[in-house]
Amino acid sequence: MKIVIGQINPTVGDLKGNVEKIIKIINKAKELSSDLIIFPELSLIGYPPRDLIYNLELADSIKKILKNYIAPLSYDLGIILGCPLYNDTNIYNSALFFYNGTLFFRQDKTLLPSYDVFDETRYFKPATDISPITFKNKRLGITICEDIWNDKDYWNRKIYEVDPIEKLVSQGVDVIINISASPYHYGKISLRTDMLSFIAKKYKKKVIYVNQVGGNDDLIFDGTSLVIDENGYIVWKGKSFEEDFGFIDLLDVQKDEVLESITEDISSVYKALILGIKDYFNKTGFKRALVALSGGIDSSVVACLAVSALGKENVLGISMPSRYSSKESVIDAKDLARNLGIEFRVIPIEKIFSSFIEILNPNGEPLIDMAEENLQARIRGNIIMFISNREGYLVLSTGNKSELAMGYCTLYGDMTGGLSVIGDIPKTLVYELARFINREREIIPERVFKKPPSAELRPNQKDEDSLPPYHILDPIIKAYIEDNLSIDKIVGLGFRRDLVEDIVKRIDSAEYKRRQSPLVLKVTTKAFGIGRRMPIAWKRNW
Amino acid sequence: MKIVIGQINPTVGDLKGNVEKIIKIINKAKELSSDLIIFPELSLIGYPPRDLIYNLELADSIKKILKNYIAPLSYDLGIILGCPLYNDTNIYNSALFFYNGTLFFRQDKTLLPSYDVFDETRYFKPATDISPITFKNKRLGITICEDIWNDKDYWNRKIYEVDPIEKLVSQGVDVIINISASPYHYGKISLRTDMLSFIAKKYKKKVIYVNQVGGNDDLIFDGTSLVIDENGYIVWKGKSFEEDFGFIDLLDVQKDEVLESITEDISSVYKALILGIKDYFNKTGFKRALVALSGGIDSSVVACLAVSALGKENVLGISMPSRYSSKESVIDAKDLARNLGIEFRVIPIEKIFSSFIEILNPNGEPLIDMAEENLQARIRGNIIMFISNREGYLVLSTGNKSELAMGYCTLYGDMTGGLSVIGDIPKTLVYELARFINREREIIPERVFKKPPSAELRPNQKDEDSLPPYHILDPIIKAYIEDNLSIDKIVGLGFRRDLVEDIVKRIDSAEYKRRQSPLVLKVTTKAFGIGRRMPIAWKRNW
Repeated sequence: MKIVIGQINPTVGDLKGNVEKIIKIINKAKELSSDLIIFPELSLIGYPPRDLIYNLELADSIKKILKNYIAPLSYDLGIILGCPLYNDTNIYNSALFFYNGTLFFRQDKTLLPSYDVFDETRYFKPATDISPITFKNKRLGITICEDIWNDKDYWNRKIYEVDPIEKLVSQGVDVIINISASPYHYGKISLRTDMLSFIAKKYKKKVIYVNQVGGNDDLIFDGTSLVIDENGYIVWKGKSFEEDFGFIDLLDVQKDEVLESITEDISSVYKALILGIKDYFNKTGFKRALVALSGGIDSSVVACLAVSALGKENVLGISMPSRYSSKESVIDAKDLARNLGIEFRVIPIEKIFSSFIEILNPNGEPLIDMAEENLQARIRGNIIMFISNREGYLVLSTGNKSELAMGYCTLYGDMTGGLSVIGDIPKTLVYELARFINREREIIPERVFKKPPSAELRPNQKDEDSLPPYHILDPIIKAYIEDNLSIDKIVGLGFRRDLVEDIVKRIDSAEYKRRQSPLVLKVTTKAFGIGRRMPIAWKRNW
Repeated sequence: MKIVIGQINPTVGDLKGNVEKIIKIINKAKELSSDLIIFPELSLIGYPPRDLIYNLELADSIKKILKNYIAPLSYDLGIILGCPLYNDTNIYNSALFFYNGTLFFRQDKTLLPSYDVFDETRYFKPATDISPITFKNKRLGITICEDIWNDKDYWNRKIYEVDPIEKLVSQGVDVIINISASPYHYGKISLRTDMLSFIAKKYKKKVIYVNQVGGNDDLIFDGTSLVIDENGYIVWKGKSFEEDFGFIDLLDVQKDEVLESITEDISSVYKALILGIKDYFNKTGFKRALVALSGGIDSSVVACLAVSALGKENVLGISMPSRYSSKESVIDAKDLARNLGIEFRVIPIEKIFSSFIEILNPNGEPLIDMAEENLQARIRGNIIMFISNREGYLVLSTGNKSELAMGYCTLYGDMTGGLSVIGDIPKTLVYELARFINREREIIPERVFKKPPSAELRPNQKDEDSLPPYHILDPIIKAYIEDNLSIDKIVGLGFRRDLVEDIVKRIDSAEYKRRQSPLVLKVTTKAFGIGRRMPIAWKRNW
């Protein structure tokens, strides 16, 4: 059986664009005399559609597209397409199997994730039944994303009672198919590959895994679709962070084609962020990015990522020194811009700052307090938004996860922007990314790595005046945010109790800032955004 | 049977504070020799706890509080308390019934809402069973919030298969009890009362409805607990938008005590917003509010609400005229401040605006484009945040729902603030609120009602240059946002197609602004915020 894997990058809501893409690949599959083509979860409308799924015009259009465009293409080719199925007042997250010009089979998703960024029980009803379908003498077990993530032998936790894979295999299947929209986080590609390989081995079944690729808002989908043989070896692997087209003859899977297992490193995070930027721009219609360059490591990394995503001709760097900025900061920003080959402007904020201070301060002189620190950041926010509004740039905000966690950032100041590129990257990982960027030649000036991080909002300010050293702070943030550990447990990892308590308190009380943050590209198991829903007006008093 | 209703206002996470409140009322109930006391849904931790419910320290503390404080108080008094129940890896939204010093009975919530602002399937497992409990010779049917909202005869839709009330009644009950945390929207009090009365009549059973009161972030809970007799008449009604203590002898319910049914008017919205402001301040620890007064109707209404919520001594009004502001605007702002008795400052932004323009514009003169319009709004944003940071005020943002829908607002400018007070109030309703505020004497200057709305960001600007008239715009926004109607259906209501299409397009494309909005107090069936989860980078192309 010849199978084509359509690892596509759909845009949410863009039915016409997505179906065009789908048809193009179907036609290619036909040229290759394929038997079956498989597309990712909800690929006709893009995942996650969120509340857009309730749009009744969209629902109507889906039905028409399936009838007029997809079904007629299925006369000599089986087509498995991820698509919402509207049924009376219910919606199902379905794998629709078209063949011979009609809907030949339908499998709804059984396990609907409702944690972290997922809200599927909000939208969908679960499948009432799961069973294999015989197609060209093969019994195919079709599942959708989460359905394959509940193996009791692989995990030491079991989120759901039912294991759809177990149910399918018990009914007899030749191949397990899974269509997915599985968002990336650092380590997810290795984890997923390992798990799928485990399942293939456990049941002695081939596994065909078809994953969405692309950035949709805060979520980045890595693709990396897989075909795994009965022994758990990878026989085909789709590209990561790119669209791909796979063509496999299931009978022809040879051991000597087996690919190495996947280990993941910082390059995945780098590619993920680039895809996240690229697609946010593509899908919102923006072309050009503006990055405020402070001469520090965060904005340097964001500028490099922006150039990789959009091209140097589409990135503008702006240095906005104040009276407290060191000369080196402007030089470092300028050197970075030169190394990247991007347009660079210097707009000193001193005169504007003075005009505020003259009006707002009693004797017209700075008092050097937090109000003035934030004011400087906000003047910069105004300037970049002014240029954004006038010249059509989209502002990339440059704050990292450590800052966002601690509230060490200024609302409407450095938090300004349409997209927070590294808001899910802890400061220590920002340095790793920077080293990776400089792996071949010095793009980020070496001095930027060496100087102590500073907001430069008052004389001789250093981050470490206000924050613990990042190599101590970051593991505590991870323990609290990603691993949901109690204060006791975090202390048990070897940190001072007063420090842990202070950090937790500061994280809790900065929630109001994060609520007004731009979208944060998610690359860890728990990012700030829709995957972490914390109240603002609450008290830790227990 | 003597029953006490504890209509309390808990703070999320504040276990110690909430249990203190609960114990105080229990002791009062004991003084009255009550048989049973009933508290609202999740009242020990406050509703909605959101992801805070995953905090394991909090879970431990709940268990201890129940064992050490609540159970021991139940020797001569039945106590029904809404509380999360942690069981292995599952959490239930439970009504815990303590009696004789122990957990006498427990009823978990059956129907878990997962739409609009609700995420209960994210957190809770549903009840596996529902059955009445006999207490002092009465059979009590205990339900939790949503459990009572699925009567097939009352609604023409049925969200869930099961009707817990039907199941309970079929097993024989004397009284139906419902503990709730039912968020307010305009019309909800009438609707809820009507529905509960219908259910009481239908089954010929008394209904005791105990609702949370208070503001928790964007959600406002109105209280308005109810005791309804078998004929559907209200025999006791808790206060709306205030804590209350009810004491009813179930045997002693007489027809001549019956209260009138409830009709709701604009005064409910007014009270809801005041409670929302008051509790946001109380629960975040802020005391004083800052309102930018433009001399327009929106900021006037917000200032009035703030004064009612916080007291005139805690509200600061700031007028920030630009070169395009009319003299009348400053006078109107000043008159309002005088009428309210609040502190008032005038800070002209001309010099600051000029200092930006000198640096950012080619010849240092204004070009009068959108970048400059937004810049003025953002300079104002900077000034109020400066005062907020320096003097400890919390900024109330003043944009209305019509503006927020259309994106007719400036990110980091007029959208600045910790709380959006009228972000769920369409402009036409803002005028109604203003009239209500002026019902006894002129607080908002009459001229503010009469002048055409204007952002005053360029010469002779009027809202109607950029927006359709509000009496046409607002119903279209409602049809699209609240009623989820298709463009065809909205046109069918009698609006021009090109107008509807343009409005829908503008609403869709302003999502990125709303994502960075402060929390919006919800008072309609669909507010901008967590109850409406729309993607940003998507295309309407179907």
